[in-house]
Parts: sequence; structure tokens; C-alpha cells
Amino acid sequence: MTGGTPAARFTADDYRARMARAVRSAADAGLAGLLVAPGPDLVWLTGYAPVDTERLTLLVLAPGRDPVLVVPALEAPDAGQAAGAPALTLRDWTDGQDPYAATAALLDGTGRLGVSDNTWAMHLLGLQRALPATSYAALTEALPLLRAVKDPAELELMAAAGAAADAAFEEIRAVRFAGRRESDVAADLAALLRRFGHSRVDFTIVASGPNGANPHHEAGDRVIRDGDMIVLDFGGLKDGYGSDTSRTVHVGEPTDEERRVHDLVREAQEAGFRAVRPGAACQDVDRAARAVIDGAGYGPYFIHRTGHGIGVTTHEPPYMIEGEEQPLLPGMCFSVEPGVYLPGRFGVRIEDIVTVTEDGGRRLNDTTRELVVVE
Amino acid sequence: MTGGTPAARFTADDYRARMARAVRSAADAGLAGLLVAPGPDLVWLTGYAPVDTERLTLLVLAPGRDPVLVVPALEAPDAGQAAGAPALTLRDWTDGQDPYAATAALLDGTGRLGVSDNTWAMHLLGLQRALPATSYAALTEALPLLRAVKDPAELELMAAAGAAADAAFEEIRAVRFAGRRESDVAADLAALLRRFGHSRVDFTIVASGPNGANPHHEAGDRVIRDGDMIVLDFGGLKDGYGSDTSRTVHVGEPTDEERRVHDLVREAQEAGFRAVRPGAACQDVDRAARAVIDGAGYGPYFIHRTGHGIGVTTHEPPYMIEGEEQPLLPGMCFSVEPGVYLPGRFGVRIEDIVTVTEDGGRRLNDTTRELVVVE
Repeated sequence: MTGGTPAARFTADDYRARMARAVRSAADAGLAGLLVAPGPDLVWLTGYAPVDTERLTLLVLAPGRDPVLVVPALEAPDAGQAAGAPALTLRDWTDGQDPYAATAALLDGTGRLGVSDNTWAMHLLGLQRALPATSYAALTEALPLLRAVKDPAELELMAAAGAAADAAFEEIRAVRFAGRRESDVAADLAALLRRFGHSRVDFTIVASGPNGANPHHEAGDRVIRDGDMIVLDFGGLKDGYGSDTSRTVHVGEPTDEERRVHDLVREAQEAGFRAVRPGAACQDVDRAARAVIDGAGYGPYFIHRTGHGIGVTTHEPPYMIEGEEQPLLPGMCFSVEPGVYLPGRFGVRIEDIVTVTEDGGRRLNDTTRELVVVE
Repeated sequence: MTGGTPAARFTADDYRARMARAVRSAADAGLAGLLVAPGPDLVWLTGYAPVDTERLTLLVLAPGRDPVLVVPALEAPDAGQAAGAPALTLRDWTDGQDPYAATAALLDGTGRLGVSDNTWAMHLLGLQRALPATSYAALTEALPLLRAVKDPAELELMAAAGAAADAAFEEIRAVRFAGRRESDVAADLAALLRRFGHSRVDFTIVASGPNGANPHHEAGDRVIRDGDMIVLDFGGLKDGYGSDTSRTVHVGEPTDEERRVHDLVREAQEAGFRAVRPGAACQDVDRAARAVIDGAGYGPYFIHRTGHGIGVTTHEPPYMIEGEEQPLLPGMCFSVEPGVYLPGRFGVRIEDIVTVTEDGGRRLNDTTRELVVVE
């Protein structure tokens, strides 16, 4: 009952290097080790993607020790097939044995340990019992940048995911919107993402007319009408890396106000993008985009942060938000997605994934940011 | 980005009663409260099924207090649509606020709390910080029987899920097996489960020839051949309740030994089923099935427990295993699934979901348990 192992794109040496980097980062952060349950961190560190269950699977990383994957015996053959398996030792356990004691034996038993955010509470309680002299920190709080800087091979996969999302937009803008439900267009979008190579669709937001003013709206029964502004925001995983792009389209000719608001958001998105360069702080991207919208008097209607990181998940650190002083580093990937939301009327959002280069930013989405008129 | 709310089948009163029952059980077990994150426990208690994320959603149940659902503000409208919402109070929080402090304010701040097994470690660590004088127990360890006894409406849904799985078996036995990959037949099975009303397929095991000797084998590239024994084990959720059934089929005429082993497992399954009655212990079901296989000298080849509970998940307590003295209660539902696994050769497993009635057991699967010959 495992989710299996994604097709190998990275080698055992790649995973060995990632695990070594994680251990160094842990030591630098004063951690005695890292405990990583099934989920995006485990995929990134080992290439192994089992289904998460009540049976403990846990990667144990500690300075001065070789990586060990604690795994249920029945799942050991699957784990052994993971691309990163040659870079670690499997420690299997069978029903009736105590996997927490087995984990404890792999650690010194003191100090602070980083534990992946989504580790089951049941497992953390078992570890706390087996290792009473340790304390714990959530991995994303302890090492927020563990997966943030992408290497060239990862950037290639990120660019391919972005190109696939762009291809989906080029097709969706040609379909009929008027007279169809939001949920119908959302289903088209999901099918297009899959057609262009996505293995997982995380979201396909189609927010028409007044629904567009709620940035959390997904897609519902509302029938799209002539005159509607429509926020499209969609993404997922292709070959293990994420896409996430938003464009706002209009059914028929927009009003002057609609056009003006759209131009404003486009200008804000451009300003956010231009703020991207190594050494700038995350909050500088937010400030640059927000200044444009504030300057036009629409500040109260831009009600979310400007962006979030993306990689083996579609939402992760770093966040482009006031107060985040983390400097941008080459290889980071994140969204730049300002929006304006006019309650009861309409919303506009424009979003590209951007990666930090040595001398600025590079967009991984590049469909037109002009207001597209659809039928 | 929520998973939405399943179509209401139970009323707010049903959920109110379940929450009240949970609080009573918690008090009886000496717990000061229950903390329930998104997952099967939350679905069962409230009908609410959001996607689980880094933003805390948590049902807080404590003796003498009304149920409260802590929920991110953006998701509060979705939560308010859940069938159980009228039976609880929403306490929303926005980015920048501390949801753990908000949760702490709903509790006395002392005592032992039950926390749902799959709650994120990140959230448990936040709760432990906000409530330093509390201790925690995993919900399934503290209250293993919380969802074990099904009421009549639940039993109806369980029976419908079982009937749908049976309908899938009746169709799959007619397809061609020889010359096709296990994974092709598995895809057929998944499509059939969906056709017969499953919204989620959890597993479609097709284990042919020597693969059948590995009870954890799923379905792979092996091409099925004439003369193969094939273990089929499939299930998922229909209208929120689980199915899980196994039948072993044979391509062409079986040998005498294959028929003998199949007869043995069928007899063991029957013996396990006949041991089901109120007041018998879970381990009695295991012992009854195992005695048949032991008596024929195949004991060493029956390498797993005889059964597991099922309900809003496809694997849950109680377990039919030696050492489990829990008495069976009317309304419990679980699998009876003995098997024999001959390494390198073949395997046989026969599995029905059984529910405990006032005077015995009732099978929720009822396709033939004779060895079916397929093409």
C-alpha cells in the first residue's frame, strides 16, 4: 500500500549530497539530528515516496553518522528501489517490534532534533517516549531554507513545469467560458495540466465575477456570464516539481475600471519581479509590488502576501511578506502574485513563478500579462 | 484549497451525538480533552474533510465545554458548510495570530489530552509549547474503539460499499487475465470500483504466480500466464465508508495442490467467520482461522494477522490478532482474511468484511469463495 517511487531523475550521488547538506545545515543550526517522515522532505532527500501510515517510516540523519531509513519490513523492498537507497542504510522492523526504540538507538539521546512538519503526532509521541532527554523543532521552522535553493537540474524541472502550465493557459483561453460553470472550466484546466505532463493537480481556481473578490474561492456552480472578470490560478506537480500561475481574463470587452485595475496589478507584478535579485530581502519583493497598489489607493484591497516558495511542493518557504528579512539567493524559486479584490464585484491576480539568478530574476511563466478577452 | 465537504448523509444531531459520545469516552479514559486534526476522526465527528496543511484546523472537545473547531479564517466558510457545523462553534484565526494560544484558551491547561494520530508534529509541538502542563496520548491508543461500533445508518453504508466491491469482482472474473500485466488488471479493478460508486480507491492488489506469495505485493509489470494463481485484494471508500475484499482466482485448471491449499484457506476463513459473536475476543477470530491452517501443517505460511477493523478508513482498530483480548461488540466491522503464502510459488487469500450481530456475524461480502477459474 505504498505510493511507490517516482521515476528516478536524480542519482544516488545527488541524494547523498542533499543528505550531507541537510546534516551540515542541522549542525549549523545546533540540531543533534533530523527525523524525516514520508512527505516532500523525504522525497527531496531520498527519492522515496511511500504512503504515510501508522507504521513508522523515518529517515534519521545525524552528524558523524551514516543516514539510516527506519522502515516497516514489508515495505523494505519498495524502499530499496528508491533512487537514494544506495546512499543510506535500511533498518527494517516488523509488527510487534518497537520502531521508536529502534530509532532511538540511532541517536545520541540528547539535544534538539528537527522533525519534519507533517510527521504524525502518534510518531512524535513515540519518539518523545523513547528519547526522553531530547527536544524537538519542526523542520520548516528549524531549517526553513533546506529545499529553497534549487540546483541546475531542479531548475530545469521547475522551468518545464512552468512551461506546461503556460501551455495549459494558451489552450484554456481559447475555450468557451460564457454559459459554463466555473467547475467545468476548472475540470478543463485540470485535464490540460495532466495532458501537458502534470502527475498531480493541486488546484484549479476559476473565480468569476464577484467570486474573484475572494482569493480563497476555488471553483463552484456559478455560471460564467458575459462581462465577468475571471481569476484563473492553477498548478500542480510535473516530474516531481511544482507549477503555479495565475492570469485574469475577461468575458467580452472590459469596462474602463476593470482595465485600469488589471493594468495596476500588472504593474505591481512587474515591480515585484524587478525587485528580485540576490541579496534583496524577501520583504523587498512584497514592498515593491505593494507600493504600486498602495500608490493607486487600492492598498486595502490587496489582502494577501505577494508570494511563496515552490519546489517539490506548490507552497513552501520562503514567503514574500513584510517582516521576512531572509536575503534572496540564486536558485530560489517563488511566486510573485499581487492582486486586487473588490468585495462583491471582481478580483484580479497575476502570478508568475520567478527564480533568482546571479543578476536578477527569471520568470518561469511567460504567457501574456495583458488582459485577455475570452468568449 | 480544501478537500471540501462530503455530501451530507448524517445530520447535525448525528454529529452532536458522536461528539458527546467521544467526550464521555475521553472522560472515562481519564483524558482532559480530545484534539482532532483533519483526517478520518474529524470526518467522523463533524463531517468536515479539509485538506490538511500547515495552517491549524483542530476540533477541541472537553468535558463540560461545547465543541469548538479552530479553523483558518479563509477556510471558515467551508467549515461552516459541514453537516456537523451546527453542532459546534467555529473559532477562526488569521495569519499572524497564534492558533495554538487560541486552542489553549479553550482548555483547562492541565491533564492528559488525546490527539488524533495523524495530527502534524508541527502542530503538536505548538500545542505542547502553548500548554506546557499537559501531556498527550495518540487518539487510537487512548480510545481505540472510538469509531469501532457502527450504528444502523453506518452499517447500511458499509453494506453498500461491500456490495459494490462484490459487483466489481463479478465483472473482473469475466475479463481476460492471461497475457496481460498485473497492472492492467489492477487498472480494470480500480475503474470498476469507481463505476460501482467508490469515490476513492485505496488498493487494487493483483498478485500473480510467485508474486502471490508476498502478501504486500500490489501489482506490477509481470505478465499473467496460464496456470497462475492470482490473489485479488481491492477496496476503497464509497459514500465515506470502506470496502476491502480478497478472492483468489486461477488461470485455467488448477493442480491438485493448488486446489487443496485454496480449500484450506476457505475452510480457515469460514472458521474465522464462525468465531464471530458478541463477547468473543478479537484473538478468538485469529485463533479459529489459524487453527485450521496450523492443523494442516501450513502454519508457517500464514504470516499475517487474520483481520483489521474498517469504517471511514479501510484499516483501523480493532485487530484480529493473538493477544488482542478486546471483546467483539455488535456493530463492529472488520476483515476476516487468512492466507497461505508459499515462497517462490503462489499465494491464496480469501477476505470478507464481517459485522458483529446480536447472535453471530454477518458477511458484507458474499461472492463465491470457491476457486474461480478465469481465462
